[in-house]
Amino acid sequence: MDIQKAKELFNETKRISLAYSHVFGVLSYDNETAAPKNSYMGLASTNEVLSELDYKLKVNEQNFEVIDTLMAHKDELDPILRREVEEDAHSLEQMRKIPMDEYTAYMVLMSEAHTAWVEAKLNNDFGKIAPYLEKIIAFNKRVAELCAPGMDAYNYWLNEFEQGLSTEKLDAFFGRIRSALVPLIKKISEKGDVIRTDFLGRICPIEQQKKLSEAVMDIMHLDRDDCSIGETEHPFTTHFNKHDVRITTHYHEDSVVSNMYSVIHEGGHALYELHTGDDLIGTSIASGTSMSIHESQSRFFENIIGRSRAFCELIFPKIREFFPEQFKDVTANEFYLAVNKAEPSLIRTEADELTYSLHIMVRYELEKRMMSGEIAVRDVPGEWNRLYKEYLGIDVPDDRRGVLQDMHWFGGMIGYFPSYALGSAYGAQILHHMNKEMDTGALVRENKLDVIIAWLTEKIYKYGMLLRPEEVLKNACGEDFDPDYYVNYLTEKMTEIYDL
Amino acid sequence: MDIQKAKELFNETKRISLAYSHVFGVLSYDNETAAPKNSYMGLASTNEVLSELDYKLKVNEQNFEVIDTLMAHKDELDPILRREVEEDAHSLEQMRKIPMDEYTAYMVLMSEAHTAWVEAKLNNDFGKIAPYLEKIIAFNKRVAELCAPGMDAYNYWLNEFEQGLSTEKLDAFFGRIRSALVPLIKKISEKGDVIRTDFLGRICPIEQQKKLSEAVMDIMHLDRDDCSIGETEHPFTTHFNKHDVRITTHYHEDSVVSNMYSVIHEGGHALYELHTGDDLIGTSIASGTSMSIHESQSRFFENIIGRSRAFCELIFPKIREFFPEQFKDVTANEFYLAVNKAEPSLIRTEADELTYSLHIMVRYELEKRMMSGEIAVRDVPGEWNRLYKEYLGIDVPDDRRGVLQDMHWFGGMIGYFPSYALGSAYGAQILHHMNKEMDTGALVRENKLDVIIAWLTEKIYKYGMLLRPEEVLKNACGEDFDPDYYVNYLTEKMTEIYDL
Repeated sequence: MDIQKAKELFNETKRISLAYSHVFGVLSYDNETAAPKNSYMGLASTNEVLSELDYKLKVNEQNFEVIDTLMAHKDELDPILRREVEEDAHSLEQMRKIPMDEYTAYMVLMSEAHTAWVEAKLNNDFGKIAPYLEKIIAFNKRVAELCAPGMDAYNYWLNEFEQGLSTEKLDAFFGRIRSALVPLIKKISEKGDVIRTDFLGRICPIEQQKKLSEAVMDIMHLDRDDCSIGETEHPFTTHFNKHDVRITTHYHEDSVVSNMYSVIHEGGHALYELHTGDDLIGTSIASGTSMSIHESQSRFFENIIGRSRAFCELIFPKIREFFPEQFKDVTANEFYLAVNKAEPSLIRTEADELTYSLHIMVRYELEKRMMSGEIAVRDVPGEWNRLYKEYLGIDVPDDRRGVLQDMHWFGGMIGYFPSYALGSAYGAQILHHMNKEMDTGALVRENKLDVIIAWLTEKIYKYGMLLRPEEVLKNACGEDFDPDYYVNYLTEKMTEIYDL
Repeated sequence: MDIQKAKELFNETKRISLAYSHVFGVLSYDNETAAPKNSYMGLASTNEVLSELDYKLKVNEQNFEVIDTLMAHKDELDPILRREVEEDAHSLEQMRKIPMDEYTAYMVLMSEAHTAWVEAKLNNDFGKIAPYLEKIIAFNKRVAELCAPGMDAYNYWLNEFEQGLSTEKLDAFFGRIRSALVPLIKKISEKGDVIRTDFLGRICPIEQQKKLSEAVMDIMHLDRDDCSIGETEHPFTTHFNKHDVRITTHYHEDSVVSNMYSVIHEGGHALYELHTGDDLIGTSIASGTSMSIHESQSRFFENIIGRSRAFCELIFPKIREFFPEQFKDVTANEFYLAVNKAEPSLIRTEADELTYSLHIMVRYELEKRMMSGEIAVRDVPGEWNRLYKEYLGIDVPDDRRGVLQDMHWFGGMIGYFPSYALGSAYGAQILHHMNKEMDTGALVRENKLDVIIAWLTEKIYKYGMLLRPEEVLKNACGEDFDPDYYVNYLTEKMTEIYDL
């Protein structure tokens, strides 16, 4: 096959594949938001048909030849096409190397394991899910062996979620933050209950909270022509292209900040997608480059910007405007302190900025040891509880609020958790370098987040997947990842807040 | 091709085709409800890809052979498969008989005409759209000639929207209702403004209106596990299968009945889809059999049930409960009279039960004459205005509120309007026969609509498209269509209300 023919076929396959992706995205979004409960019945068969069509589109000899031809000439391709081809080649690799029957069996296992996890969590019964987890680990090892013979299996999967990642890097990262944060958390605990949070639980009508959501979206320059806001129990962001991004939030009458920080977090994800380069429209790389870089943006806006003193001073008058009664005896400073209160807790998704990474560290240590065979699945709950006590100083009362709380492992995602902690740490490093060029705090206080967004667009957003995660960070910061920025950021912030 | 092979191929094509239909439906629903404005950019290319795939799936020699083989043996097929094959054969016919380039040119014309209509309506400029309408009429005649040589072109298109329909039948129908309703409307007009409606415009908070929507859905036994409710400017119903039906409504603070009757109307459409037979699940005929039978159900619930004295007595206490202040000086009887006030108006979609069919009659006469060449497109606005004066006694101030108000003609749908009036008339005939078996009014008053729905399910809903429109009506009523029921129903109701 000549290169010209290969390019034509590649583009035609891409055109169809992008349409399928769009459809899968909308079906899933609709299912999470608008669909009646029993929608799943018809959805299952439609998803099955589309998955088959998508599989046939990609897994065939002609497409292999197209990809192989283009990969053989990759240095002659323009940078965008080259990255598209590389990504496709990579995602096809597993499909080509794993025997079809094993692949299908794994898909069935995943689906069964998810159902079993829902039940196990409901009944607080780890024993129910343990056999599935054992099979998942065995399969993940097998895939690593087939696709990257000789490579450490856990490293293989870390790379799947974040190119360039390894246990070596993560050991260093988590070692650094453990040594700094565990004593810091202990010091704060010893201070006792010094921050007032009573007003955060006051009833705020949902219609008014919706107005606050709109105000927050305005502050973040989230254009509603390109980005809608919906409601779901668990907030999320999805996108189909840069002109069609969807965030969701949830409303609880007794927690106005839960909604507000959901909007800011998801808004951070949305900004990344809304500002990928126009040159990437219609390509398969018009999207955030990795999950950790994505989390760096959502957590940057949620915590580094959204929980900064400057932002609290900007937003608090709005909050007072929408909820005059509820916040009449509260100052902006009290609000700032309340939303930054650090307190070890059981559930990762509800953790504060300081303790969050330690939740991830527990998961990292356990999944690394499960993959190396150092720990058996049946011993995981006990180790989980021991580590929570060691790092966070708390007792886990049951597996429901322990090892069973997150679905990731039971959906086959082993090696995914570290991205969350990395994202937080990247954010601190990005802030440091941003502050060399502008006074971020002053910009936030003056409601000029557009300047910050423009900087992030120029350094990160516009590249989409054109740059790999490591390259993105280096492009933004001019240096490799360094966890010290994160440790310093948290230490300084907490020292000031708790007067340590 | 042997019949067994043909069946296998037919089922495989159907499986994929149903998935595409599901996807088109969800994409469209999402676009109407949740999508940000600029979603259309990505949607256009995804719809294009899917349309191509759907076209290739059906329009090919193998599929023609499949359909031809099964049609040749249709008497040997089970009834469900037979109807599926007949429907497919029919819908393929145009694609097979119209040369591809003409078909494509028409699709382009449709798209351009729609845009031109939006602009023409905005600028009150019929001249802008007239050339498109001329081309549409020419093409519709050409299609009729190719697909049904020798058949009257307008009759061909009436049949496309409602199998078995003809100008002969419609002339008789509209002649009958014109002779009865025009004098009736005149008599009511002469009575003057005798019905009090001031309270219908009182401000009712939307949060409370939403509770009323839920109450109405409960009364109509619309199970939220199978049927969701959303919000759009123009309410509509869509469905993907019998376990996934979506209705929408709109909320105006100054019109609680606008929302309520939207929910009831769309709820009528939804009931039909929710109660198609389980034996039709996964087939291509699990859907209402035609637009007029569908309208017969939505308008049956909206007007015949929803605007009955019994229903007003049932719902009024609820309304008083949700809006005590707004309705404190109103009686159930005053409410009943207000929602039945008959008043000639300019806009079809806002017309009352009595005058509605006359709006349709104007459109019927004009489209029939356009298709026969009896009237030129440029003369249509003048004729429109003359007929509104003649039938409804009102002057049309401009084309925006006249001939340009509806999009149908400018989207190629010529022959579609009569279904609306037929639906209303079918409803009255259905009521008559239902009343022979039960006291419909008493059941409504006692909040037992489930008995009515069960009757409709048994007589109409469960068949889906297994029966043709005429057969459905005959099955429900034991006789052919007779417009006298409709005339009598309206005459009796209005005579009582206006004390004529």
